[in-house]
Amino acid sequence: MRIDLNCDMGESFGVYTLGHDEAAMPYVTSINVACGFHASDPSNILKTIKKAKQYNLAIGAHPSFPDLVGFGRRALAASKDEIYADVVYQIGALIGMCKSEGLTLQHVKAHGALYNMAEKDINVAAAIAEAIRRVDPTLYMVCSCGSVMVQAAQAAGVKYVEEAFADRAYTKDGTLVPRRQSGAVIHNTQEVADRVLNLIKTGNVKAIDGSEVVLKAQTICVHGDTPGAVDMIKEIRAKLIQEGITVSPFGK
Amino acid sequence: MRIDLNCDMGESFGVYTLGHDEAAMPYVTSINVACGFHASDPSNILKTIKKAKQYNLAIGAHPSFPDLVGFGRRALAASKDEIYADVVYQIGALIGMCKSEGLTLQHVKAHGALYNMAEKDINVAAAIAEAIRRVDPTLYMVCSCGSVMVQAAQAAGVKYVEEAFADRAYTKDGTLVPRRQSGAVIHNTQEVADRVLNLIKTGNVKAIDGSEVVLKAQTICVHGDTPGAVDMIKEIRAKLIQEGITVSPFGK
Amino acid sequence: MRIDLNCDMGESFGVYTLGHDEAAMPYVTSINVACGFHASDPSNILKTIKKAKQYNLAIGAHPSFPDLVGFGRRALAASKDEIYADVVYQIGALIGMCKSEGLTLQHVKAHGALYNMAEKDINVAAAIAEAIRRVDPTLYMVCSCGSVMVQAAQAAGVKYVEEAFADRAYTKDGTLVPRRQSGAVIHNTQEVADRVLNLIKTGNVKAIDGSEVVLKAQTICVHGDTPGAVDMIKEIRAKLIQEGITVSPFGK
Amino acid sequence: MRIDLNCDMGESFGVYTLGHDEAAMPYVTSINVACGFHASDPSNILKTIKKAKQYNLAIGAHPSFPDLVGFGRRALAASKDEIYADVVYQIGALIGMCKSEGLTLQHVKAHGALYNMAEKDINVAAAIAEAIRRVDPTLYMVCSCGSVMVQAAQAAGVKYVEEAFADRAYTKDGTLVPRRQSGAVIHNTQEVADRVLNLIKTGNVKAIDGSEVVLKAQTICVHGDTPGAVDMIKEIRAKLIQEGITVSPFGK
Repeated sequence: MRIDLNCDMGESFGVYTLGHDEAAMPYVTSINVACGFHASDPSNILKTIKKAKQYNLAIGAHPSFPDLVGFGRRALAASKDEIYADVVYQIGALIGMCKSEGLTLQHVKAHGALYNMAEKDINVAAAIAEAIRRVDPTLYMVCSCGSVMVQAAQAAGVKYVEEAFADRAYTKDGTLVPRRQSGAVIHNTQEVADRVLNLIKTGNVKAIDGSEVVLKAQTICVHGDTPGAVDMIKEIRAKLIQEGITVSPFGK
Repeated sequence: MRIDLNCDMGESFGVYTLGHDEAAMPYVTSINVACGFHASDPSNILKTIKKAKQYNLAIGAHPSFPDLVGFGRRALAASKDEIYADVVYQIGALIGMCKSEGLTLQHVKAHGALYNMAEKDINVAAAIAEAIRRVDPTLYMVCSCGSVMVQAAQAAGVKYVEEAFADRAYTKDGTLVPRRQSGAVIHNTQEVADRVLNLIKTGNVKAIDGSEVVLKAQTICVHGDTPGAVDMIKEIRAKLIQEGITVSPFGK
Repeated sequence: MRIDLNCDMGESFGVYTLGHDEAAMPYVTSINVACGFHASDPSNILKTIKKAKQYNLAIGAHPSFPDLVGFGRRALAASKDEIYADVVYQIGALIGMCKSEGLTLQHVKAHGALYNMAEKDINVAAAIAEAIRRVDPTLYMVCSCGSVMVQAAQAAGVKYVEEAFADRAYTKDGTLVPRRQSGAVIHNTQEVADRVLNLIKTGNVKAIDGSEVVLKAQTICVHGDTPGAVDMIKEIRAKLIQEGITVSPFGK
Repeated sequence: MRIDLNCDMGESFGVYTLGHDEAAMPYVTSINVACGFHASDPSNILKTIKKAKQYNLAIGAHPSFPDLVGFGRRALAASKDEIYADVVYQIGALIGMCKSEGLTLQHVKAHGALYNMAEKDINVAAAIAEAIRRVDPTLYMVCSCGSVMVQAAQAAGVKYVEEAFADRAYTKDGTLVPRRQSGAVIHNTQEVADRVLNLIKTGNVKAIDGSEVVLKAQTICVHGDTPGAVDMIKEIRAKLIQEGITVSPFGK
């Protein structure tokens, strides 16, 4: 049994620092690097990739709507063509950054509002899948478990992995409980680690209503934005290894 | 005998149109495509590359300082590391765009103030050459004739071509006569065409003081920003072909 | 009888030119000046205001979502607080520009997607009205005829005028026929001029289904983006003056 | 005897936090608020001004070159006209923000590279002074002690104050010792407090070579970017009050 732990990184911008990238790097296997549209800039991207190289991490592009001030979290009524071009551009920029360090890009995972829209809107998901297929069909698309992103990846003939969220509650339909709802985020580290372990072993997670829901995840999304979040990653990883699960990038 | 004609293109931005790209495309052989830092955006870059594909043009990245409002024409005190990262990012973005259309990037030519600084400042030129070497050493660096850009390309072991400007006067030292000086820009189409022809045939151009100056150019920079400029390209190309000179991309 | 003719202006950006501002200025009475969020920059704003001063035009701020590349035409899921702050900022910038030329700002008219959202979403309209009230309660809010913008202006105690669109068809409910629908835009200059005249004289416009719809407009929105559009403004104005209608800024 | 303590604030941007504004607010009297060009955005500016209102602080605009990614610290070859327009715009935006909270703007202090250029280049300083004069001649211009900014303010007929830097060493000519030079920044809190006190009482500061240099400062620039810096402000203020010096905004 084997799993990947993916984490958003490289979200610092100019003089501004965000996240605890270096603290989290020893514990994750894949990182999603901001491409300059919702966060980061060329110097910070390069710095992030150089560090990731030291930790032998697999690197992904984390494309977004162009919205630095809103951190890519605000839905934008961009056309399918605009999304396609924006994603091609951002993947390309990350490929260039990786090549400059002798590395290859592993995957593409949409960020923020773009991710949320791609979960539900097949046109948005298809624009992302198509960008991947046309720029480099060896790249993986990271898809929210069971969402239309999976359909889009399949339709485009793009390799993909499905991801589950370590610290988020799920509804009985396998969708995330909205953040504004009580119980949406699980804060207890032990509980989170147990859920992740159970998910990997059984392919099931207990939904918020107590029912069992199937989640076929090849990667688990974790967070490195606070010291507490980093502790949680450390704990999850330790538990997984202790249980004999291989923690490694999905692309290897 | 053979020459390349290169032209800046893809400088439209959002709803804003700049240049007469499509009118000029039939007459040039290589284009320098804006990368989103001084002009353009992903949708306009893609549109430009699709058109260039129809005309079978060789494509180059045209990286710049990040200054949309100033069109990259204002010197910026960026560090060598910042320039390096900015250029890696922009080359990567263009590689991605080209790959999405099944094309490969031919060259990199700095834009505006970045170009002007790279002509004189070896650190700036070296940052650009290093970015090329590390992202893709098969790319050509377009260098101003006899400038420190050539030294930087040589030191980095990067392939390069030297360029001369079709409509600009040169000093006896082989540098461009500054634009603010009288006679800096040659407006007579016939005169420009004759100078280009002479340059290709003899490797010499008549300097503003009447002396002969050596210019070893493999590519000639032309402009497509006005209908008159496009006419000039058309004229130059016709003259060259009439004289038996092959007009083709330098990378072929 | 009296009417104002308002027109979007100052939408050039950096080296990019948009619109035929100076050609249209002799014929309009109020202008909506882009504030740098969907178009324009400080230098272009200042240039626009200096020209407007020559033509003795009343000046308004034309705030937008922050989306230069999309020209503010894409809906953005900004919060009410973000919209409020963005509008306060943009109004302030325009007040500063006007003061630097000894002028006072007359009005605020939302641009593009912000305008479209404010027509239907009371929260968006209220954020704009509140920004006006708190920055300068002597400013007028330009509201789409009969939309919730009017309610928002009334609730905030802000002065307002209602506007109709010269070249757009209306439904029987007094809303604009969507652009994608056939007949949405009226291209015949004479017909447009007649409609405007009728609207001013009777307070009615013929809807697309032939019925009469009441539109209480104190200002008519016209366009200056093409030479043809400018001719249309000229024609409208000539017709109105010929019919004894005073064409002047609503704020005077 | 009386002095003002001024501090840069409102430099957070989007989700990014910078500085310890609220910790420093109880101890300073005037703040220089970022205007969105090197840092901040409308929502953060508004938040800063609301907090400043609670602490009864005098508010200034802190205009910059447009360079978010470089935090306005990189010299930019902008023309005098561009600088003038950029400063008018930024002052206006801050006036709007202040008016929305029932406050008036006290001063304008250039930021980063713009400040550094204005210290030496009369054209840059004059562009700033002219912007102040034309937008609101009741505003103060904060000038580096004895720099050409003072001449520019006088020539424009603009009110001004001169500022000294609490923790920076001065040369015998009254200019700042460059940061890269040893001893440029004084880290000992007690020493800084003593220097400030001496400066206020005698109008002199001990230069790095041991000589006495005259500095006529009406305001002292302090920093709130680290908890240690805030402690230093607290210490300085306590010392001044203990010595009977009135600490209050220069504009009152």
